[in-house]
Amino acid sequence: MSETDLSPLPVTPTPLFGTAVVAGVGLIGGSVAGGLRQRFLARRVIGLDASVDVLREAEALGLVDEVRPTAGEWLRDADLVVLAAPMRALLPLANELAPFLNPAALVTDVGSVKGGIAAEMERLMVRNFVAGHPMAGSERGGVTHANAALLENAVWVLTPTDQTPLTALSRARTLVEGLGAAPVVMPPDAHDALVATVSHLPYLASLALTHMVARDERLSLLAAGGFRDLTRVASGDPRMSRDMVVENKAALREALRRFRYQLDRLEADLEEPEELLAAAHEGKRTRDSLPVVRRSLLPQKYDLVVAVPDRPNQIGIVTQTLGAAGVNIKDIEVLAIREEGGALRLGLESADAVTQATGILRGAGFEVRGRG
Amino acid sequence: MSETDLSPLPVTPTPLFGTAVVAGVGLIGGSVAGGLRQRFLARRVIGLDASVDVLREAEALGLVDEVRPTAGEWLRDADLVVLAAPMRALLPLANELAPFLNPAALVTDVGSVKGGIAAEMERLMVRNFVAGHPMAGSERGGVTHANAALLENAVWVLTPTDQTPLTALSRARTLVEGLGAAPVVMPPDAHDALVATVSHLPYLASLALTHMVARDERLSLLAAGGFRDLTRVASGDPRMSRDMVVENKAALREALRRFRYQLDRLEADLEEPEELLAAAHEGKRTRDSLPVVRRSLLPQKYDLVVAVPDRPNQIGIVTQTLGAAGVNIKDIEVLAIREEGGALRLGLESADAVTQATGILRGAGFEVRGRG
Repeated sequence: MSETDLSPLPVTPTPLFGTAVVAGVGLIGGSVAGGLRQRFLARRVIGLDASVDVLREAEALGLVDEVRPTAGEWLRDADLVVLAAPMRALLPLANELAPFLNPAALVTDVGSVKGGIAAEMERLMVRNFVAGHPMAGSERGGVTHANAALLENAVWVLTPTDQTPLTALSRARTLVEGLGAAPVVMPPDAHDALVATVSHLPYLASLALTHMVARDERLSLLAAGGFRDLTRVASGDPRMSRDMVVENKAALREALRRFRYQLDRLEADLEEPEELLAAAHEGKRTRDSLPVVRRSLLPQKYDLVVAVPDRPNQIGIVTQTLGAAGVNIKDIEVLAIREEGGALRLGLESADAVTQATGILRGAGFEVRGRG
Repeated sequence: MSETDLSPLPVTPTPLFGTAVVAGVGLIGGSVAGGLRQRFLARRVIGLDASVDVLREAEALGLVDEVRPTAGEWLRDADLVVLAAPMRALLPLANELAPFLNPAALVTDVGSVKGGIAAEMERLMVRNFVAGHPMAGSERGGVTHANAALLENAVWVLTPTDQTPLTALSRARTLVEGLGAAPVVMPPDAHDALVATVSHLPYLASLALTHMVARDERLSLLAAGGFRDLTRVASGDPRMSRDMVVENKAALREALRRFRYQLDRLEADLEEPEELLAAAHEGKRTRDSLPVVRRSLLPQKYDLVVAVPDRPNQIGIVTQTLGAAGVNIKDIEVLAIREEGGALRLGLESADAVTQATGILRGAGFEVRGRG
């Protein structure tokens, strides 16, 4: 490769945020932090968590640049603060952080119920707050399973109120899109009614079914495929699930009312086989048309992300530079491109290859980030 | 390999049945037929189905030895008859076959509701009838997806009545075990109450949930992971599902009553967060302790089954014979062993390898069966 191929030297794109703070580094918080780093959305990502073990793990996984165990004056530097504590800890956390927040900072949360939080933030005089809810999760929680890929293509609801500054909403949208998720904007109570139907009611129905087979060996013996599917969500974290449904109990009661109505109707149709057949057909049509969220299911173990300026042939330069050094690229993906440039994710064969490629690319003037 | 390794020549084990007839060659019937052949449980397996296309497919897949489009005198040869038509066609089929059945033949069915069928068979004077229900299935039905592996380790309920001859029950157990499934014996009404709880109620609940999001784009947009799990069974064949629940409506009503009670209790617990947490913990415990049915999820594409007599070193002889010829065995499994011997299933690399291995083993005196 000739010298001219590499000039002018690549320029790292300007990130959306300077200092981003993720408060509460669990499954979602850790995934957001990892996404902010990997996708060059923030110059510096700070993880805030009361647990030193969690912070150590987040650092080891390469999800954050720095860690802090307590709130303090250092928070004034942050122009993005993501509240990612569990539901029950969210308001105490907001109260703890509020005195230190920069008024210009964009503040958002990831709680699964949205009624109430905006009013609380207003009371705390946090002006640029936009409540949010990434519809992503996993039965296996905790920072250990955090992964930026969890958020890719996920629906991420934003619930502004009349008080939300439009610029804040706009920045929140850009953040969500930058993380690879799909922003959907709606009022808080509309969100709560929707998740009561698609998430909290299914959890309660699943729990009711498991209780019907509890302590009955013959029943659990017969509980094959379909029953396992229907009760999978009952296997989630009991405390988080409990908090979620209690927080949203008004909307959940309404969803239960509508669910009972549907059950009654189907029970009546047991005497009207043609009606029941029509209902079965409609159910299948609806189920088969539900969108499938596509995301990388298997996190790349040996990958790195390299920032590229928006100039011709950057992909060629990166791949040729590595190819000339004998590094085998197994997978390549173009991450979100912004005006100033974008980033490439490269999947390599081994940890050694990641180390080698990082050195080579940095030597050629590229900025590189990896996992772990 | 020396000549002595192969002598005395292998003897094919005596099958449990001479002529087996599977009437209705769909997903379950085809899988039973395939199992009867592959596992050497019957000397000859005849598929009976009104559809010529289905019969052609069953032959092409190697599930049956012979096919017949209509009942007739030829049925007198059968010492095993498996009624595997869908629920709604089961009684007409029994009536069609009854005049031709050999009184000594073991007759069984695979319907998902058991109340009533035994009385009907008694009326038809079919003496050696044992009602059965293999708890196996797939969202993808039809002979195309039939596979003996579907029945492996599946719970297979047998529901004898006071009139069932003990010898018939004993033969039915041996059949079920021979197919690799786990027989569980209980009265018909106990079975129907159990499947109402673990199968028919979950279907109705799933259907009710899908109806709640029907024609609401915002709802189906948010319907991620958990909701998809809970509504998967609503994606099954509408007519078969409808027939199943209508047939079992009495038991299903009782299950619905108990389900509503559990939902009411959980709704009340929304005001008692500690109670709800305990309920969430109990639900998780129950769900996590449900048995997982282990079976070969990916059917071996290139496999063959070879009968081996119960003598020392048969596995060694088979593998050495193939190894000497350069055939690479990727997988090997010992199928059910009976007194006279058993069978080995070999997974090979390609269709060519199956053809080659079949020739070699037959040349060495072994009986070989394959898929397709």
